[in-house]
Amino acid sequence: MSATNKKAVVLVSGGLDSATVLATAKAQGYECYALSFDYGQRQISELNAARAVALAHGAVDHKVVRLSLNDFGGSALTDHSIDVPETLEEGIPITYVPARNTVFLSLALGWAEVLSANEVFIGVNAVDYSGYPDCRPEFIQAFESMANLATKAGVEGHKLSIRTPLMQLTKAEIIRMGIAAGVDYSLTVSCYQADEEGKACGRCDSCRLRAKGFADAGVVDPTRYQ
Amino acid sequence: MSATNKKAVVLVSGGLDSATVLATAKAQGYECYALSFDYGQRQISELNAARAVALAHGAVDHKVVRLSLNDFGGSALTDHSIDVPETLEEGIPITYVPARNTVFLSLALGWAEVLSANEVFIGVNAVDYSGYPDCRPEFIQAFESMANLATKAGVEGHKLSIRTPLMQLTKAEIIRMGIAAGVDYSLTVSCYQADEEGKACGRCDSCRLRAKGFADAGVVDPTRYQ
Repeated sequence: MSATNKKAVVLVSGGLDSATVLATAKAQGYECYALSFDYGQRQISELNAARAVALAHGAVDHKVVRLSLNDFGGSALTDHSIDVPETLEEGIPITYVPARNTVFLSLALGWAEVLSANEVFIGVNAVDYSGYPDCRPEFIQAFESMANLATKAGVEGHKLSIRTPLMQLTKAEIIRMGIAAGVDYSLTVSCYQADEEGKACGRCDSCRLRAKGFADAGVVDPTRYQ
Repeated sequence: MSATNKKAVVLVSGGLDSATVLATAKAQGYECYALSFDYGQRQISELNAARAVALAHGAVDHKVVRLSLNDFGGSALTDHSIDVPETLEEGIPITYVPARNTVFLSLALGWAEVLSANEVFIGVNAVDYSGYPDCRPEFIQAFESMANLATKAGVEGHKLSIRTPLMQLTKAEIIRMGIAAGVDYSLTVSCYQADEEGKACGRCDSCRLRAKGFADAGVVDPTRYQ
């Protein structure tokens, strides 16, 4: 089944998950508009990776929206006074950024409306990252309902769908799906404290989940470590 | 009834409506955190007015979040190639900015979470601006439901409320409420094409609605015209 000429906004962070989503959406025939955010995250390597991923996987456009979430503080990912933890935690992780997916999806909604795109793809996952409230299916469903009341398109009956193809997959399953869609994972950066060249620390939560994913998938890990 | 020490994030645009909301929330005993956006709107006078309003009406903090909505295009308010219409239109106005209230409320949600604030105030109104899908009660209710699934606070049972004290008021009623709460309307700018000093054109939709509001309220119009 082809969906040729169907437009989709795809949130691309530069990480493993969103690269998989972009390649998969493209493989399904969507005309993909990649959207990234410069929101005060520590590592600029993440945005460099997002640009490389969007280019390598055929996005027809890539926008980077700047917004100053770090003004609010409250997360180890944007607040330089909080150390990034190196062990897996119970409950909601300190690396959670307040309302991040809500903000990102809202901006994706705005661009989708301008483009007359009916789909927004986001690489959230309820398996490995269950500590983040805004990665759960019930959040995504509530966002979709809200979005269809928020816009001209919704009011005029053109339903917007939030697509979460990774929601119920393990990291290993995500990697196998990405390999099938031709993802070059060496371009992606998952590490919370990657260096300027995008080399990973190998110790933070995100590095551990990623390395375990490649091991479980039986795929050689192309991650560049420091 | 006092709500002393209760924190609220208040969206402040620099216009008449949000100044009324801020003064009213303050009069109700809320500790008000004013939030504005620099999103590529045409007139910088709007942000200058937001700063003056926040200061004059006792906000304990005021943040201006920069974000580049104009990258997306699609509205006469952010796209300089589209003329601002001077007559009231049928249906959804061309001055509608894609997903604007969704984006603004999402960022307010993020700040509310960091502050442990349980209230977000927004000056939307379903009477004068019924052409905007994201000013309707059903949109606000859907946003609130989504917000309570999106955050740590929601997950832990601390309900966030979106307060819309102007929702069902006419412009004249809004002005009378603001006068009672001590609003200095000479600080506010409603005009879609105000000059750098904040002086209004007197011809656009927003100027017409504002002038009619003062006339209907029987209040001397303090607007500074060009």
